[in-house]
Amino acid sequence: MAELNGDQIPLCYEKIAPYIHRTPVLTSRLINEITGAEVYFKCENFQRMGAYKMRGATHALLCLSEQERSRGVVTHSSGNFAQALALAAKSLGVKAHIVMPTTAPEVKKKGVVEYGGIIYECEPTLYARNAKAEEIQSRTGAAFLHPSNDPDVILGQGTAAYELLQDQPDLDCILTPVGGGGLIAGTALAADFMNPSVEVLGTEPFAVDDAYRSLISGRIEGNETTDTIADGLKTQLGSNTFPVIRKYVKKIIRVEEEEIVEAMRLIWERMKIIVEPSSAVALAGLYRDRADFKGKKVGIIISGGNVDLGHLPF
Amino acid sequence: MAELNGDQIPLCYEKIAPYIHRTPVLTSRLINEITGAEVYFKCENFQRMGAYKMRGATHALLCLSEQERSRGVVTHSSGNFAQALALAAKSLGVKAHIVMPTTAPEVKKKGVVEYGGIIYECEPTLYARNAKAEEIQSRTGAAFLHPSNDPDVILGQGTAAYELLQDQPDLDCILTPVGGGGLIAGTALAADFMNPSVEVLGTEPFAVDDAYRSLISGRIEGNETTDTIADGLKTQLGSNTFPVIRKYVKKIIRVEEEEIVEAMRLIWERMKIIVEPSSAVALAGLYRDRADFKGKKVGIIISGGNVDLGHLPF
Repeated sequence: MAELNGDQIPLCYEKIAPYIHRTPVLTSRLINEITGAEVYFKCENFQRMGAYKMRGATHALLCLSEQERSRGVVTHSSGNFAQALALAAKSLGVKAHIVMPTTAPEVKKKGVVEYGGIIYECEPTLYARNAKAEEIQSRTGAAFLHPSNDPDVILGQGTAAYELLQDQPDLDCILTPVGGGGLIAGTALAADFMNPSVEVLGTEPFAVDDAYRSLISGRIEGNETTDTIADGLKTQLGSNTFPVIRKYVKKIIRVEEEEIVEAMRLIWERMKIIVEPSSAVALAGLYRDRADFKGKKVGIIISGGNVDLGHLPF
Repeated sequence: MAELNGDQIPLCYEKIAPYIHRTPVLTSRLINEITGAEVYFKCENFQRMGAYKMRGATHALLCLSEQERSRGVVTHSSGNFAQALALAAKSLGVKAHIVMPTTAPEVKKKGVVEYGGIIYECEPTLYARNAKAEEIQSRTGAAFLHPSNDPDVILGQGTAAYELLQDQPDLDCILTPVGGGGLIAGTALAADFMNPSVEVLGTEPFAVDDAYRSLISGRIEGNETTDTIADGLKTQLGSNTFPVIRKYVKKIIRVEEEEIVEAMRLIWERMKIIVEPSSAVALAGLYRDRADFKGKKVGIIISGGNVDLGHLPF
């Protein structure tokens, strides 16, 4: 495979634009006062199905041939990518097989079913979900799409920053949360293409600081435990996301769980928008290191807004 | 006093525009599908301090003379108007005396203090709060501004619909919640001025259906109990709001408490925005009478987004 490159993003954007929302960029006077920075929130919580994952899923589907699409697609995900692929597949008349762990929240399963995806339950281990996905692949001929490491998924996720930099070309930096690395890798590629002086920074919980450790050790690290409220950030980097992150991302800011909840509450109470804990990680990181961002124009990708209203941390 | 008239709204808008946000109008494909109508949400939850009350409070302050402003203002309110007047007064360098019942939620008192308002606590009765407000008036010379019945407040509230009809001139109707009647009276005046064919409809909980009963009896009715989640709608109509409502508003739709919570959850989950229960009453009314709105272009004023995240109905 050729190296991933930011100049592939405009074509990617052109392809997916009819299927996604161009999301708004919001600001908050109060949050600017509190942080001392000028913050621009790219609101992917307003994206279709409530998260940026819709971009990558749509792009990956559109990059398959007609023949491949006719045989369906398969992925494993307990989170937003499951719903994103189900909805994108529905829009394009493609069958979506979704492998989900038995432990996945009911609300996420409900979302997949609502969007017409076919759920296959498996034990909540990496081995079990890979085995189940492979079984479906060999039985149906469906194409496997990885939630964060697929190159076309990565490019698709980059279109959020592409739009953000069209609206605010002179940002000093962009902060994103880091889970599997698809969002930050795509963001880094988009920034490099649009304006290489824009710094891209990652943020993640101390509890799952695999990306932070990976940048230090130079190889993909895992997490021994995944005890964080930021349920979208429990996964580790992949073979395609890690090289991009290593090349472009200079720093990962780590935050405590209480800082995530505090940032989430601040966004809910003051901006009146619903964001999921993973999205609040980026603002928590900005606030923690606010001395470094003083007076700067900072973009934050609000990754999504899918929360279970019955289980809030407030 | 001269009769309130919609042609006073443009000047009012010009006055307050520098002090308020022009709020966005949002739509939701899914809510359109569910209701069968084309719904335009005017998002006053994104207004400064989180509610449309900011408009009326600002306008009333600007209509006072320099000399009156120098003596301060006083109001009684347990809700959004208290915060709105405190913030508007702060913006204009005016002293705001706010009478609040001892039972007012801590979060609302905190808001008033944060905006620089001076709180006076009183017993939670109409008599006690009037007495306390009068005492402050006679002691300080402050001007009394009623939260919903003041004519300049009513005109200010009308600017939300004025903006909405600038953005969407061909609405068939606009739905608002009804408490003291300031929002719906202002909305009716704005609609009459902008496009008299736009119908204005009220919505309120069965639990506090005083406006519904007032339109039937022809006089201002009260509520014997106020047991509703829609905390902003417990008050009754006033001497200035009632005549306007009687003249322009043909119908009040009443809804059950469960319908309010369901509509609120729908907005939170699908639109990813935070709205208070009183705001959800309007969507609940639309949904309850959806047969009447089929295929119509319906505006809904989302009145505010100030909720206590520690006490949600989900």
